[in-house]
Amino acid sequence: MTTIPSETVAVQLGTRTYSIEVGSSLIGAPSTYQALPRGSGAVVVTNATVGALYAEQLAAALRTRYAQVETILVADGEAFKNWQSLQAIVDALVVARADRSTTVFALGGGVVGDLAGFAAACFMRGVPYVQVPTTLLAQVDSSVGGKTGINHAEGKNLIGAFHQPIAVVADVDVLATLPPRELVAGLAEVIKYGAIADDAFLAWIEANLSALLAGERAALAYAVLRSCQIKASVVAADERESGPRATLNFGHTFAHAIETGTGHGTWLHGEAVGCGMAMAADLSVRLGLIGPAHAERIAALISAAGLPLRAPDLGVERYLELMRMDKKAAAGELRFVVLEGPGRAALRPVDARTVIPTIRAFVSERRASAS
Amino acid sequence: MTTIPSETVAVQLGTRTYSIEVGSSLIGAPSTYQALPRGSGAVVVTNATVGALYAEQLAAALRTRYAQVETILVADGEAFKNWQSLQAIVDALVVARADRSTTVFALGGGVVGDLAGFAAACFMRGVPYVQVPTTLLAQVDSSVGGKTGINHAEGKNLIGAFHQPIAVVADVDVLATLPPRELVAGLAEVIKYGAIADDAFLAWIEANLSALLAGERAALAYAVLRSCQIKASVVAADERESGPRATLNFGHTFAHAIETGTGHGTWLHGEAVGCGMAMAADLSVRLGLIGPAHAERIAALISAAGLPLRAPDLGVERYLELMRMDKKAAAGELRFVVLEGPGRAALRPVDARTVIPTIRAFVSERRASAS
Repeated sequence: MTTIPSETVAVQLGTRTYSIEVGSSLIGAPSTYQALPRGSGAVVVTNATVGALYAEQLAAALRTRYAQVETILVADGEAFKNWQSLQAIVDALVVARADRSTTVFALGGGVVGDLAGFAAACFMRGVPYVQVPTTLLAQVDSSVGGKTGINHAEGKNLIGAFHQPIAVVADVDVLATLPPRELVAGLAEVIKYGAIADDAFLAWIEANLSALLAGERAALAYAVLRSCQIKASVVAADERESGPRATLNFGHTFAHAIETGTGHGTWLHGEAVGCGMAMAADLSVRLGLIGPAHAERIAALISAAGLPLRAPDLGVERYLELMRMDKKAAAGELRFVVLEGPGRAALRPVDARTVIPTIRAFVSERRASAS
Repeated sequence: MTTIPSETVAVQLGTRTYSIEVGSSLIGAPSTYQALPRGSGAVVVTNATVGALYAEQLAAALRTRYAQVETILVADGEAFKNWQSLQAIVDALVVARADRSTTVFALGGGVVGDLAGFAAACFMRGVPYVQVPTTLLAQVDSSVGGKTGINHAEGKNLIGAFHQPIAVVADVDVLATLPPRELVAGLAEVIKYGAIADDAFLAWIEANLSALLAGERAALAYAVLRSCQIKASVVAADERESGPRATLNFGHTFAHAIETGTGHGTWLHGEAVGCGMAMAADLSVRLGLIGPAHAERIAALISAAGLPLRAPDLGVERYLELMRMDKKAAAGELRFVVLEGPGRAALRPVDARTVIPTIRAFVSERRASAS
């Protein structure tokens, strides 16, 4: 396998600035970790599936830098992004005699990254951690920006912390072992960056969709790099999501309702985001912000990527209830990220009456045939 | 009861700067809360004991500012500063339909403040909170500086976050209902400020000890004010405890071992700190940093305040094991805040062999008679 030259994206956050390295043959290379602080040791948090594939090569590389390297296994799946898993990681850190200078490595997808990152945020009120994302979704989204957390029965990521990693290692080689369903789910977030911030990138995705779906590494590497560049610039401008960062949640208010309403783990996050983006685009049309052709273009790309366009029938009232629990909601008022044009998005309050037709349209049989 | 004029201490932390108001008749006065952001409501977290005394007057005052005011009760005592209580608060915030703009009010001692503060730090990745401390210990220490957290079986405050309150309301009237044992425990932290930062304040405490023990409000108000001034200046210089803030942990490495070793809640935190400060002063003498007369002066004041000088006999090995789990320890090396002179302290690595004689001296019968 040829090596793709690695590229670096800096997330500019003052004293907490860090680099995302995007490339191939990164995980097992000692040079990847050379600039990290040594501290008193390293702890790798992973799950059994990913761990079997990559934990040993990561640990071997880390042993060239850290005197002590321990591994902690967590259960695999969104349903385990909960209090119990968080406590299990903390207990394991205590057993591993971790201290304030121990670096935690999150090796896995979004669940491992969010869990390990939140454990790193809480343990001794904060220890350093490195994201080593192994899914496309995690490489382009969850590993960057410092959002960590766990789910609550009534809301996704309802409990958590902003805790920036000290580095992100996005090795596209690992995407070769990713189940096709997860690769497709990751493409939802890639499409999102095009939709909200860069219409030329959206056109690039449209033109290169078959290469991406075929797992061509050069195409994936560019998709990861451009996605990380967009996310890094948004996060640098608004770390705590008081303004522009909220646009990264395009499609996510609907998506979180789908995920919570069907039980975390039934839908993949990316699948829910795919459907949610089509719904948010439809809502944008109903608000008169964009024309129907642009919403159709977004929906067509989502569908061509293999993402669902039909939403689960939770009932309109349950959708509204779940969306009112969304972190973007305020005083019971619904707020959505809507499109204002190609590559432009904004957070807006939307009346429930305006949202209901969108929900109805997407849970109907009719929508299934559109996909 | 006459009103003591209130004084304000600012904790200077840039955009997160906030005020500590020290005075009397504050909790039930609507004016106390006039400058706070309204948001979508207020949630008071308290326990049954404190709640019975002050929750209604606090809620009545808050209703003049907030459209919605809910109350959440947590169990009373250090043993309940755990995962279960944290989850219970989060669940109750969900039930109360709290959102990102809801302000949490922590009405109680250190346990309520640490728990409610940590819940506010985690809920939706951070909501604003106000500390309304009702013990002397919480007024002079735990309510100021943004340290929040819960205990782990292997270490006190092992899990937590730095999350600054948006205001602290220290109403000395509430100290009248404080059990004498808790008033005494609070004096330990007051003595600490004199020992580590202000020898003139230490002398003032010596001269006014009987007024403080008698609960005289003017004396208590000055003790709270001066303690908060010292803590505010240390926190402003070093919010995340990378340097000088560590000196606030004078006596705390021994204290945390005593608290964890005897089971959280057996010793009051202030009692453990009292004994721990005498031990740390003794250790400072053994390191040749101060003369025995200064350590004796500290021990005499601790004893005169009614605090214990004899440490529980956990066994030397268990003490060392617990102290190696301390958050200040690094790579298994023990570190202690030691005195370097009157009003001067520093964090230093100390060899276990040097610490053992101090542990032996304080667990022995001999020390009991010194108190």
